[in-house]
Amino acid sequence: MSHVVKKRKLDKSRQDRLYFDSYSDVTIHEEMIADHVRTNTYRTAIQRNSESIRGKVVLDVGAGTGVLSIFCAQAGAKKVYAVEACSIAEQAVKIVKHNNMDDRVEVIRGTVETVDLPEKVEVIVSEWMGYALLHESMLNSVLYARDRWLKPGGVILPSKAELYIAPISDPVVEDRLHFWYTVKDQYGVDMSCMSDFAQRCIMNSDITVNSVTVEDVLSHPARFAELDLYSVTVEELRAVKGHFRCESFGSAAVNAFCVYFTVTFPCPDKPLVLSTSPFKPETHWKQAVLYLDAPVEVVQDTPVTGEVSMYPSEDSARHICIHVDYSIGEQKTQSKTFSIPDWSSEAQS
Amino acid sequence: MSHVVKKRKLDKSRQDRLYFDSYSDVTIHEEMIADHVRTNTYRTAIQRNSESIRGKVVLDVGAGTGVLSIFCAQAGAKKVYAVEACSIAEQAVKIVKHNNMDDRVEVIRGTVETVDLPEKVEVIVSEWMGYALLHESMLNSVLYARDRWLKPGGVILPSKAELYIAPISDPVVEDRLHFWYTVKDQYGVDMSCMSDFAQRCIMNSDITVNSVTVEDVLSHPARFAELDLYSVTVEELRAVKGHFRCESFGSAAVNAFCVYFTVTFPCPDKPLVLSTSPFKPETHWKQAVLYLDAPVEVVQDTPVTGEVSMYPSEDSARHICIHVDYSIGEQKTQSKTFSIPDWSSEAQS
Repeated sequence: MSHVVKKRKLDKSRQDRLYFDSYSDVTIHEEMIADHVRTNTYRTAIQRNSESIRGKVVLDVGAGTGVLSIFCAQAGAKKVYAVEACSIAEQAVKIVKHNNMDDRVEVIRGTVETVDLPEKVEVIVSEWMGYALLHESMLNSVLYARDRWLKPGGVILPSKAELYIAPISDPVVEDRLHFWYTVKDQYGVDMSCMSDFAQRCIMNSDITVNSVTVEDVLSHPARFAELDLYSVTVEELRAVKGHFRCESFGSAAVNAFCVYFTVTFPCPDKPLVLSTSPFKPETHWKQAVLYLDAPVEVVQDTPVTGEVSMYPSEDSARHICIHVDYSIGEQKTQSKTFSIPDWSSEAQS
Repeated sequence: MSHVVKKRKLDKSRQDRLYFDSYSDVTIHEEMIADHVRTNTYRTAIQRNSESIRGKVVLDVGAGTGVLSIFCAQAGAKKVYAVEACSIAEQAVKIVKHNNMDDRVEVIRGTVETVDLPEKVEVIVSEWMGYALLHESMLNSVLYARDRWLKPGGVILPSKAELYIAPISDPVVEDRLHFWYTVKDQYGVDMSCMSDFAQRCIMNSDITVNSVTVEDVLSHPARFAELDLYSVTVEELRAVKGHFRCESFGSAAVNAFCVYFTVTFPCPDKPLVLSTSPFKPETHWKQAVLYLDAPVEVVQDTPVTGEVSMYPSEDSARHICIHVDYSIGEQKTQSKTFSIPDWSSEAQS
């Protein structure tokens, strides 16, 4: 007996309270630190950028438990300001002290938009990425920090984000739709007529965060957007969009798109990429899965083309909507708008 | 990036709307029908009670997709009233028709407290059980139906519910607390001081719905309450309580209690029990896990005694609270009150 809840408009202050409350529980921090791809890529990137960090002043935007700030201190930073709005900041203070870093790492509780730093910084480090890159992301805060606190010629880690899309065939959907045809054999009641209803419920407009298996990806992913963190503006984040073109590897039934991101750290030798691709080791971001209304058959080289547009939800600026205009083979262009179900709010109507 | 949300008082009509909306999605119905223990036990119980059902009028309280109503029609019921408040009733109508049962099964959309049946009934069947038996359960509605619509001498399926408790040792908690001691080896930052915070977050007062492994159960479970559906009153459901006494199988660290239920169907030969015990095949109800504030060491035959009290939450009458007074070995009595986190509402403060 589980609850399915609907969206409701939240006023701005309540949104912020929910957002900042949510990071105080240990589970999310455990998940993030235990995500070896995430934490180790940041650690390696910070170590490889030690020439830019040694003797410099660093700002960590949304520092959480302070682990990235400590990595920067270990890489030789003269001073690290670890700015964190949630009560997890109290734990960060303890951890910094426990690692004898309290002479170099200063935890400051507050949002980066409101705190007053005693000086400008040479480096900004931040792990700001949300599901589908921009869902509940802190990128706006990073851009604020860049414009307000970064010295000219300063470094941003990571410095670039890219978004990708690929058509997929999710076998779980097929299994779940087929389930209703199996009830008669099991219990003697024919429930096959539930299949249409099940399809409407399952292939809905929610963004599902799920691990996509490599075998279920039906083409090479297509990059549809790139954000340069040195130059992108808050205004540009209100509509991140781009075209894509994929070609099917073989015969299959496309029933969804998967969207994922990479971020790139500049390094003296070659750039270091933190990838959430289904072709790479799994991260806690998994992939964002967008279900079509119904499966579409493709064969080898069938083109899957279209345009993706990502923008903040009208209900809550921290929540992302993804609109996809797409065409599969000879099919005329279809459109569907997706959003992440808002488990923090309740029925609107 | 996940949300952790807090409780908020909901007015009664909003509570009802959330409750009845939540059963319209296909997922919960798929989960319930795919729960073979649940669906097959009901089917077998209805078949074995065909002498009580044949030629009789049946009321199915909270009929969902109508599958139990069809089982009753297949067992020879003259007429089945399938009362369902959610929009899933529309699917039940289709399924009944699709199985050529529309002459015998009548789907009526509404709550059993408000619908007007054309006649009294000889049998009430209902799958009303929630997590920990009483969380979001429909038992009040079944009792209303009994008092309003059941003829004297009529049959209720199931007719009895029993609640059990046992001390357990959940290894996941141990692993999660230990995690913070492993961070230094992995990333060179000592985060062991997070362990206290982690314990407060993980061993909190939420009721966790989880599958308890047989090996983690530390004693024979103790029955602490029994509800006779022929005689129990709505008033009595406001405080379902009882004492328990368990004795530890061996040496271990108790870190939680597990609470589960059985319901019993009278049958001509011998009663049929639908059990959600960790010693029986898993059901979608799993078990309710209640974490202590800190682990307590026990040895063989250490007594674990106390009293459990279950009552509706003040915030929402459909939500259950479980209060446990307990004593482990020589320890003085401790108390803790648990509730299921309310994912359907939002921050109160």
